[in-house]
Amino acid sequence: MKMQINLDRMMKDLESLRQFGKTDEGGVSRHPFTKEDQQARNYLIKEAEKNGLIARVDSASSVILRYEGKNPSAPVILMGSHYDTVINGGAYDGILGVVTGLEVVRTLSENNIRLEHPVEVIAFNDEEGSRFGKGFAGSKAMTGRLFPKDLEESRDRNGISLGQAMQAAGFDPSLIPMAQRKSSELHAFVELHIEQGPVLEHAGEDIGIVTTIVGTCRYNIIVHGRPDHAGTTPMEMRKDPLVAAAKVIAKIPDLAHLYDPQGVATVGIIQTKPGAANVVPASASFSLDVRSKVPGAARGVVERILEELKQACGEDLTFEAYNLKSVQQETPVDLHPWVQKNIELAAQKLGVRYRYMFSGAGHDAELIAELCPTGMIFVPSREGRSHSPLEYTKPEHIERGAQVMLETVLNLDITSADLEIPNI
Amino acid sequence: MKMQINLDRMMKDLESLRQFGKTDEGGVSRHPFTKEDQQARNYLIKEAEKNGLIARVDSASSVILRYEGKNPSAPVILMGSHYDTVINGGAYDGILGVVTGLEVVRTLSENNIRLEHPVEVIAFNDEEGSRFGKGFAGSKAMTGRLFPKDLEESRDRNGISLGQAMQAAGFDPSLIPMAQRKSSELHAFVELHIEQGPVLEHAGEDIGIVTTIVGTCRYNIIVHGRPDHAGTTPMEMRKDPLVAAAKVIAKIPDLAHLYDPQGVATVGIIQTKPGAANVVPASASFSLDVRSKVPGAARGVVERILEELKQACGEDLTFEAYNLKSVQQETPVDLHPWVQKNIELAAQKLGVRYRYMFSGAGHDAELIAELCPTGMIFVPSREGRSHSPLEYTKPEHIERGAQVMLETVLNLDITSADLEIPNI
Repeated sequence: MKMQINLDRMMKDLESLRQFGKTDEGGVSRHPFTKEDQQARNYLIKEAEKNGLIARVDSASSVILRYEGKNPSAPVILMGSHYDTVINGGAYDGILGVVTGLEVVRTLSENNIRLEHPVEVIAFNDEEGSRFGKGFAGSKAMTGRLFPKDLEESRDRNGISLGQAMQAAGFDPSLIPMAQRKSSELHAFVELHIEQGPVLEHAGEDIGIVTTIVGTCRYNIIVHGRPDHAGTTPMEMRKDPLVAAAKVIAKIPDLAHLYDPQGVATVGIIQTKPGAANVVPASASFSLDVRSKVPGAARGVVERILEELKQACGEDLTFEAYNLKSVQQETPVDLHPWVQKNIELAAQKLGVRYRYMFSGAGHDAELIAELCPTGMIFVPSREGRSHSPLEYTKPEHIERGAQVMLETVLNLDITSADLEIPNI
Repeated sequence: MKMQINLDRMMKDLESLRQFGKTDEGGVSRHPFTKEDQQARNYLIKEAEKNGLIARVDSASSVILRYEGKNPSAPVILMGSHYDTVINGGAYDGILGVVTGLEVVRTLSENNIRLEHPVEVIAFNDEEGSRFGKGFAGSKAMTGRLFPKDLEESRDRNGISLGQAMQAAGFDPSLIPMAQRKSSELHAFVELHIEQGPVLEHAGEDIGIVTTIVGTCRYNIIVHGRPDHAGTTPMEMRKDPLVAAAKVIAKIPDLAHLYDPQGVATVGIIQTKPGAANVVPASASFSLDVRSKVPGAARGVVERILEELKQACGEDLTFEAYNLKSVQQETPVDLHPWVQKNIELAAQKLGVRYRYMFSGAGHDAELIAELCPTGMIFVPSREGRSHSPLEYTKPEHIERGAQVMLETVLNLDITSADLEIPNI
């Protein structure tokens, strides 16, 4: 007998949850420690209780819904993702992984299937960093990496620190260490997430099995020249920092592939000072974001770009390059082959089209991967859109994703990362 | 007997006038129809009256100081420049030409030299356009080119129109046409101005004789692409408008010389939307300012740049190019050979080092050139700085400039644009 997840129920969850922070533009702004994230927590807890799950909220505001196992002391099979959004983001990023986890345990419960392992659904908070900048607060707390310094230093636009905001929302920041979990408590973690890219849609596939979460190098680069009158300064007497920056930016699409054919590099921000049409810029600053699944590749591309910039600057110009280390991990994170294989077996059993792929975006999974065997399931994003009201994943893909998650959990329950993968 | 201008008196004028709008950064912000420009007008009128000149302020707020000629009905020899500044500009741009004119007539007066022609010093207002955008208001009024539409449409940051500001400062905008002067009233116009570029200083010369004021093409260009996630979108699936813009901007120094070895082209402003480090830009917009002394050359360079941009955009990207026609004249303005020659003869007589050169910046002279034979005298700018508190011209260059102006006026008085230039 094939258990069937209930797509209508999932769509109702998604529709309900998108109300908490709905924007005029049709998007969602649900930020940590606001009225809206409280509403989302309440919704999840209520849904859990309706379905006989044990709900709790940890000291870092992660919601954890537990479906007890035959062996309550066995390590937990964990599913989930985050429930916060970017500013005016979509209704799928993060929350779809939470709703999928919830649906999987609801389906197990109504089919009276109790697994050997307890199953937990986790909804992390503050993954996006859209209010306090850094993000990943919930998964950092779970891995013991959210420190008092972070609570104090991470501040929103009004100067309110993460710690202050937690307190105002009824959480005690001094209890953060209690959110930490031990490796021995966890059997596996699987995060389902929208792809946020166009690869699956272009290939006509339903499921991405994530092999690696890329490492990211993020820089802010400032080229210094000399401001000059745009009419009276001969071209050969100028020190134009924007021309040097442009020479390098023009080459970036080629340089991105230097050490990894799938590496990416992006300049998303650029500006000049003083910023007048009739003044040769005094300085040109730009952001640089380089990512790769290959260890060291992003670093190598950054170094080559800085070398090119040095040449473009010659003796007339200088530049500074600031490594924004706090933003994302530079080292790619490989997900666990045992989890990947179980996802593949699930996909094969269900006959859905899948591919192995890397994740170009960061996810809570990259933190949890250091605690326990971790995997990720991607579902397609229409036109690759995310972080936007245009974000959309078709119901059929939501259904297939949840169904694959359910089968994966069943597979994980009867296998172990330490043993050879059985032929199901 | 060689008449000697009084440098100390000029330096005192410059020091007094820089107080009206002095900024904390050591610069000057003297904008049209403010307390500060009123103070400057009052200063000039008072100086004129001390020296027996007849002072008046025309309906467009140009200050006109008249030193009567032997023949009061003869056409006027006009000297001058503007008395407004850019935001946090320098103490020389514009006002030095006014002070030089004033000093020339003071010197004539104290030496009891009365010329055949009346001599007038004019201080135009609102040349820079730093409050109302367009600029050249005083010289446009004198040539009958300041229209009611301009008075209504040109607005400052607070939405106050040029007409409203005039009225608030005690000027009646309906009287603007009275500022217009006829060609027959004017013998010649000579504007002394700082070079605002590095050419004279580099060459170790004292005086530039301006042959042509460049024509300028000013554009705002917007390249449209598609916003994508910087991590999840493969390089080959992107539509990145900044990369296309950068390819073209990198080539601009070469393209600037396409039809004129001294042509210039500048991108002073660039920005992306949405402007986030982890988002491939949806659009990249940049300013383009192209200038040349050769008719049609600036236009030709713009067309080539747009052609290059079209190629860089390919089929994935589109762009819009807005011609900002109101900013500056596209057609170069040639100054009058008779005035140029008289400046040269003056420089030769005084033994100062000079060169013929074009002006890369716009000046009131380009408007007045359509009314009467017009010339310009440049004096060196230290390191080419202008529109900045760093603007500086050495006292010795101020002295030589004024002395050349005095000799030029004497030459103009005894010659005519219609006759062959006499051998002095």
